[in-house]
Order: sequence, then C-alpha cells, then structure tokens
Amino acid sequence: MLHAVIMAGGVGARFWPLSRRNRPKQLLDLTGEGTMIERTITRLEGLVDSDHIWIVTNAEQAAMIKELIPSFNEQRFIIEPLGRNTAPAIGLAALHLHKHDPEAVMIVLPADHRITNIEQFHYCLHSAVEIVHDSELLATIGIEPNRPETGYGYIQMDTTGIRVRENVYPVKTFAEKPNLATARLFLESGEFVWNSGMFVWRADTILNQIREHLPVWGVAFEEIGNAIGTPQEKETTRKAFEAGKGISIDYGVMEKAPKVAVVRGTFDWNDVGSWDEVWRLMPHDENGNATRGIVALANTENTLVLGNKKLIAAVGVSNLIIVETDDAIMICPLDRSQEVKDLVDKLKASGQEGVL
Amino acid sequence: MLHAVIMAGGVGARFWPLSRRNRPKQLLDLTGEGTMIERTITRLEGLVDSDHIWIVTNAEQAAMIKELIPSFNEQRFIIEPLGRNTAPAIGLAALHLHKHDPEAVMIVLPADHRITNIEQFHYCLHSAVEIVHDSELLATIGIEPNRPETGYGYIQMDTTGIRVRENVYPVKTFAEKPNLATARLFLESGEFVWNSGMFVWRADTILNQIREHLPVWGVAFEEIGNAIGTPQEKETTRKAFEAGKGISIDYGVMEKAPKVAVVRGTFDWNDVGSWDEVWRLMPHDENGNATRGIVALANTENTLVLGNKKLIAAVGVSNLIIVETDDAIMICPLDRSQEVKDLVDKLKASGQEGVL
Repeated sequence: MLHAVIMAGGVGARFWPLSRRNRPKQLLDLTGEGTMIERTITRLEGLVDSDHIWIVTNAEQAAMIKELIPSFNEQRFIIEPLGRNTAPAIGLAALHLHKHDPEAVMIVLPADHRITNIEQFHYCLHSAVEIVHDSELLATIGIEPNRPETGYGYIQMDTTGIRVRENVYPVKTFAEKPNLATARLFLESGEFVWNSGMFVWRADTILNQIREHLPVWGVAFEEIGNAIGTPQEKETTRKAFEAGKGISIDYGVMEKAPKVAVVRGTFDWNDVGSWDEVWRLMPHDENGNATRGIVALANTENTLVLGNKKLIAAVGVSNLIIVETDDAIMICPLDRSQEVKDLVDKLKASGQEGVL
Repeated sequence: MLHAVIMAGGVGARFWPLSRRNRPKQLLDLTGEGTMIERTITRLEGLVDSDHIWIVTNAEQAAMIKELIPSFNEQRFIIEPLGRNTAPAIGLAALHLHKHDPEAVMIVLPADHRITNIEQFHYCLHSAVEIVHDSELLATIGIEPNRPETGYGYIQMDTTGIRVRENVYPVKTFAEKPNLATARLFLESGEFVWNSGMFVWRADTILNQIREHLPVWGVAFEEIGNAIGTPQEKETTRKAFEAGKGISIDYGVMEKAPKVAVVRGTFDWNDVGSWDEVWRLMPHDENGNATRGIVALANTENTLVLGNKKLIAAVGVSNLIIVETDDAIMICPLDRSQEVKDLVDKLKASGQEGVL
C-alpha cells in the first residue's frame, strides 16, 4: 500500500520572529495560504489515503500539529526522541511503516515546501511509485530548474541511456549547493535538476540500504524494530537516538546506493527558504509591496510587511522586510535576511532566549 | 515684575506616531530627558518665580499638562479658544499679565525647544529684561549660528552703531528660511543669528504695538480686556478668536515695529524639528545607533529606535527611524522624515484618523 511520510522535524531560526524554537516554518502561514504542514497534507488528497499519512516529528511539535489539525490520527505520529537529521528519521518511519504494512511503499515529503500545479505533482509521484513498488530502486524527485539558483543542491541525470519512462532518469551524481558560475553551467547543460528532498521507495528497500551504508544505525533499527509494540519501545528508541550520530539521507545513503533514479518534476516548487522568497510568493501592489495586517505605506516599494495587531506605517523605504509578532518587531533588508541568524545568535548569547 | 509665558499651542504631525493630534511635541519625551514642557519650566528656575510662569494653550492640552505637572497653578493657564498663530496668543497672554500686574515684563518662550547651557540662557534673558523693563523696546533672542541651517528663519543685526550692551543689537531685517547658498552667506557675514521665537518685552508695550500694527486684534483685545473677570470673559474671548485672522508675531508685529533689539544668544539651542534631530541629540553606540526600549541590533548603523513594549530587532539596516507606540509602528529613513506628513495625510484621507 502507498503511504506518505511528512518530515516535520526542523527548528526554524530563519523566519524569526515568526518562527520560534517551538514553532518552525511548517507551522507558519508565511504567505497567507494556510500553514505549510496543512497544505502538505491537503496536497496529497487523491493520491494517498488520509489514514496512510504519517508525520515524523518531536513530541512538542506533534502536540502543536494535533492542535492545528484535530482530525489527524494520533496513531500516525512517529516521534523522534531527538533530532538526528534525515537518515535516522526516515529509517525510524520506514521501520514503523514496514511493521504496519510489510509491502509499504513510502513517499517522503518535507513539511515546509510550497508546490503549485498539484496534477503534475501527483503525476510525478505516481511515476516514482510505479518504478519502486516491485523493485529495489530508490527514487528521488528532481525539479526542472528555471534559474541558476545557488540555494539548492542539484542532481545530475544520466540522459544517455534508454529509459523505461520519459520522466525517469538514472542518477549520475549529487552536487552540493553550487556557486553562481557553476549553477549557470548546471542550468545550461540541461542535465541537472534541483534536489527537492522528496523520495519514494519501498520501506524494506530503504531499511536494507540503511543497514548496508549506515551499519551502526542498522543495528539500532534492529533493536528498535524488536521493541516496537512492547513497553520498551520508547526507551529503546530514545537510547538509540542518543547514541547515534546525525546524518542526512543524501549523504548517508543516496550518494552511496547503487540503484538511484530521479523523477524529473515539472511542477512549481519552492522551499520558501528566505523572507525574500515569501515576498516573491505573495501578491504585490503596483509598487511591488506585499503586505498582511494593518498597513499604511507612503513612497514605499518592494517591501514585505507582515503585521500583527498594530498599524505598521512605512515611509520612503524600499526592499525592506518588516515583521511584527506579539512580542517582537523585526526590520531587515530583503536581500540580507540570512543575517537574521546573526541576530538570533546574539540574542541567544545575551541570554534573551525568551523571544527565540 | 518678571513673568514667563510658555507657548504650548501647536499640534504635532511631524513626530507621528509619537505625537498625536492631542499630544504634540511639547508633551513628548523625545530624547529621554523628560517632556519638553517640563524642561521648559525647569529651565526658568532661578530666573522667574514659579508662580509667575504662565502657559498659553488650548483646553485639551491644559488638562494634559495639569496631569503631567500637578504642581502647576491652574490659575496660570491662559486658554486659547482656538489656534490663531502666535500674535493673538501672545496678545491674549499680555492682556492677562497686564491685568494681573500693570508693570509686567514678559518673557515669551516656545514650549518645545531644547536648550543646554542654562547659565548663558539666563544671562541672555536677563540682558533682554534690563533693556525692556523701562523702555518701549521689543527684544527678540537670536542664536549664534554654527552651521548654514536652512530650517530656521534668520535675523540680521545692525553691527555698525554704538551699543549699550555688548550682546544687544538693533535689528536690521528679519529673513525667512533661506536656501543653502543664502544660509552660507548669512553664516559667513557674521551679521545673522537664528530667529528662536523667544521674545522679551513689557506687557503694555506689546499690547500697544498690536493695537498699532494689527488694529482689528487691537479692538478685539480691548473687548476681551473689559470682559476679563466677568461672566462674559470666556464667550467674549471665543467670539474674538473665531472672528479674528491667524497671524504670526514676527510677520504681524516684529517686522513692522520701530524699536526692535536682538539679544545675541550663545547658548546651545535646538528646535528639535525632525526625527534626525532627535537622533543627533541622543547618545549613540559605537555604530551611531541611538535607541530606547528593548532593542537588539545586528550589522546596523546610524539608526534611531524608539521602542515601547516589544523587542525591536533591526538587522543589516542603516540611517533608519523605527518608532513603536501602543498602536503603531513607523519606519522611515532618517533623512526622509519630512515625508511622514504624506503618510499622515494619507491616513486622514482614508478615514483612519483613529491613529492620528
């Protein structure tokens, strides 16, 4: 049977002050369309049975998600005792799915991406399911790039061989985030797609691959697998995660696995990685301003205002981000939002963690 | 006897959102030193008896001042029924003072100027009192300019004749706010001082001069004078102000009067006319930032932050004004604060007067 596993582990500093330690990006409604995790679930309608949707997250976020989406089946939370990056989180999910359904095919989806053009999205996942459900293939979803983006990893496709499906290619290499010159070469070559962090495989396939390439986690999952459904389950999982090293699925498994295919996705995809991305995704007025809340602007352009309760008045500014929350106001140029991290670090260092 | 009349009539849009229709500049603590009106009163200690200090203002502001300074003698408020610029306000005050004390010498002081170096300030006013108390001279206080300021009016002194006091000159001309080239010439000439809006004269002298140069107001003050102390006082004053035209004391009297002297002031004086002035007057950190409230800055310089209750975080910005009040947040470049008026007009036009 087909299952979806939504990865909702991350903590978010990039969208401070909207995102907080306990309220990362997936729990936010950044663009005014609904929270990203709700939209991730809704996006699966018609493809995955709603009772086959799982969420991997920590206990604190699970409670918040439950509050946000009361209809979500509590049995479908898979609780990470602590964050150990994507490989252990995916392994833990695969273990639970496999126990629940030995024939499980799992779609792995980040909780905090924005996708439009749902039909293309479904078509792409459907292609991936078709190639993995009776094979040992690992499928990854690559996105057709439309600009020389330096903020994403890339996947190089082998475009030379014979293909069973027009949108599925063998993977040649995984490439880290490139510099601009390299990103331009990638784009021109036509051989590279963006690494979206979405994967499709059988649960038993990924468990075998983890055992092969991450043997210490293989042993840990063996122990957790034996404990699932017993009174020791929670304790065994916690101990294994405490002892294990964090590692990403890309670095730990995908780059080493022998049979990896990439499905070329043509849907609109965005990882909403920065405030200027939020600004770009929102509707604009004739001066390029994107606003929410009570806002008054004079001689202002290309500015993102996310208000809360107060009137936010901007006069004579451009390319600025202004965000108001219940206890903070953040002002930063649109193209310098990566520096918000500097401020978060500074607040941490000065003991002002209450606002983080 | 010596009296001081503090002019507290103005409404303030320039410091929105701190200043409001009912809360103009003199009632604000812009620089963190106390409200300007309190400081104006305190500044007179040792020069004018506290029971000889009068405030000309409207009824609404009088109530706020009374709340701010409970010790202020309510009998010393002179209520303008409506704003008619400085000449009628000063005339009304002179009328009350003259009734109270026929020998009254009055010092007229704006409520919203910042002065340091109190000793020099007292010395200057003392000189003015000495030349007017037994003459029909009108004395105005001019400030020694230290830069080619285009935001102030100027007074040209006659530096050629013989003078009775080293710091007192006959006035040659009054000059409106100059352009930069003219302001430079003024500064170089050594003959020009800034027009501070501070005056010293006998109450009967200024009443005579108003009768002479503003005869309609002369008649009005005659009627008000007869009504003072009777049940008709309030109604007569209101009618006179409703019927009369607004006019400034400079334009209506000073420029026409035959005997005007300027006392050259060497104290530090500032009319705190804009947000960048506020920024300049406040203490700065090593990056030129001036802040009040709960503030966190990263990679930020030359920025003025006046916080209220929320944490204000600025990242990667420079030359910005950020002001938070209970119901509004205003963001504007330091050198474009004159455009705040555009926004206030816009809010007025769109019916959002609640925040003005």
